[in-house]
Amino acid sequence: MDVRYDVAVIGTGPAGLSAAITLKIRNKNILLLGSKTGSSKVEKAHEIHNYLGLPAVTGEKLSGQFMEHLKQMEIPITEENITSVYAMGDYFALTTKTNRMYEASAVILGTGVNFGKPYQGEEQFLGSGVSYCATCDAPLYKGKTVAIIGDSPKEEAEAEFLAEIAGKVYYIPTYKGTINIKNNIQVVWDIPVGVQGEYQVEKLILKKQELEVDGVFILREAVSPASLVPGIKMDGNHVEVNRKMETNLKGCFACGDITGTPYQYIKAAGEGNVAAISAVEYLSKLN
Amino acid sequence: MDVRYDVAVIGTGPAGLSAAITLKIRNKNILLLGSKTGSSKVEKAHEIHNYLGLPAVTGEKLSGQFMEHLKQMEIPITEENITSVYAMGDYFALTTKTNRMYEASAVILGTGVNFGKPYQGEEQFLGSGVSYCATCDAPLYKGKTVAIIGDSPKEEAEAEFLAEIAGKVYYIPTYKGTINIKNNIQVVWDIPVGVQGEYQVEKLILKKQELEVDGVFILREAVSPASLVPGIKMDGNHVEVNRKMETNLKGCFACGDITGTPYQYIKAAGEGNVAAISAVEYLSKLN
Repeated sequence: MDVRYDVAVIGTGPAGLSAAITLKIRNKNILLLGSKTGSSKVEKAHEIHNYLGLPAVTGEKLSGQFMEHLKQMEIPITEENITSVYAMGDYFALTTKTNRMYEASAVILGTGVNFGKPYQGEEQFLGSGVSYCATCDAPLYKGKTVAIIGDSPKEEAEAEFLAEIAGKVYYIPTYKGTINIKNNIQVVWDIPVGVQGEYQVEKLILKKQELEVDGVFILREAVSPASLVPGIKMDGNHVEVNRKMETNLKGCFACGDITGTPYQYIKAAGEGNVAAISAVEYLSKLN
Repeated sequence: MDVRYDVAVIGTGPAGLSAAITLKIRNKNILLLGSKTGSSKVEKAHEIHNYLGLPAVTGEKLSGQFMEHLKQMEIPITEENITSVYAMGDYFALTTKTNRMYEASAVILGTGVNFGKPYQGEEQFLGSGVSYCATCDAPLYKGKTVAIIGDSPKEEAEAEFLAEIAGKVYYIPTYKGTINIKNNIQVVWDIPVGVQGEYQVEKLILKKQELEVDGVFILREAVSPASLVPGIKMDGNHVEVNRKMETNLKGCFACGDITGTPYQYIKAAGEGNVAAISAVEYLSKLN
């Protein structure tokens, strides 16, 4: 380790990238960690309608524009898997899977939500019938049949929204309790196993039955990212932040899906910008 | 007024536009209020480097992309000047400069920070001699003496209109340049300080002189959120919001510069998205 970076940005989704470009404008020495191709979630998204300024953009196109932005600003991505971030007082120590070590005065977490163990076929069909976002992808299923796997009661509102557009909606709750949902939605009490199809999703496989569907929405809560940053304060499954994107650890900021719903690209990008500016403020007080 | 909208979005900067497109995707019946050409602040910006996905974009280009997005989604802008937003319990009543009235179940404020600090006594005498609207209140000053504080040349026409009704009109421009105004109006080059009176406005206090007047018209680009929405909780000059963009008034959300720094387009757009989704949640509980 030869250098202490001003800011380590972990994650190359919209939140991390947005943070990185603002930090670069502010002349900070940054270490941007993540996949060189950006977020696969963005890339595989079918079409995004609410990233203001880029109407009806495919995930692939949007991801390409993000990467182009980075390239124009000459911001490299370091492809390392970070295993731990330790708060050392006035700096952070980051360890990697390959046993390297990095140091940075501030850290911005933009690692997204860890979706836990995927269902069979889930990753394969992501963007080909599997979706994580009702708001984004509902228009694709106009008049069609969709299944929604909901991990919490708040997904019931998403199901109702989909039922306004789709022809037939199944709702498979993975939680217990009363389902408070309009009766044009068929609630199925069963355990999801996987999705199947040839090129596109054709079936949702449940433990006791199969449903013929055109699409499957998997609406999960995040799995705790607390193991990455020992001592970080969580709010349920998300990192707790205030409006400045500060976590409970001084010098550690978070942005994007990791801070909570809504899981939306423009929200993530906006938070990345705020986190970057808060980090700049923090650094100016540090020196 | 024939219809109660689901959501009234006030402001056509990045925050309001972002809110509008997400609400449209969520099938809400929206009333988007503001300038048909969007934000003049965006349009006049030189070059923006940190709106992720649009590297090194001029303000004019960015503004054009925003308008194109709206056009593609068939979201019209209603060009009305909102003078008040009243919380009526389960809906909001919006009054306009032209004495129209609109109703909406929820409101999203994205009016930016063009309002500036109120003058001494301004809020105290609002409705008792202080007015923001020449069209609305001119008849009250038939044959009387009024002062007009104008923040831009377009207020000169308002002054001329008032001069047709009032007995004596002073015009105090707060901008520089040539004043192109009829000569029955007395232009006063001085700096406004405040208004004074017992129950009603009696005097306009300027830095170098005092004017005895029956009314003071303060014609700014936008009115302060506290005057626009009676009862809204402020945090200094900004509207206080939480991470869901909720204000203290149920069903009223705020986003963009109005909620505080950083004053950045991508931050505003991100907040607009969050406000929209919070409004959708609010509406689903309302029904």
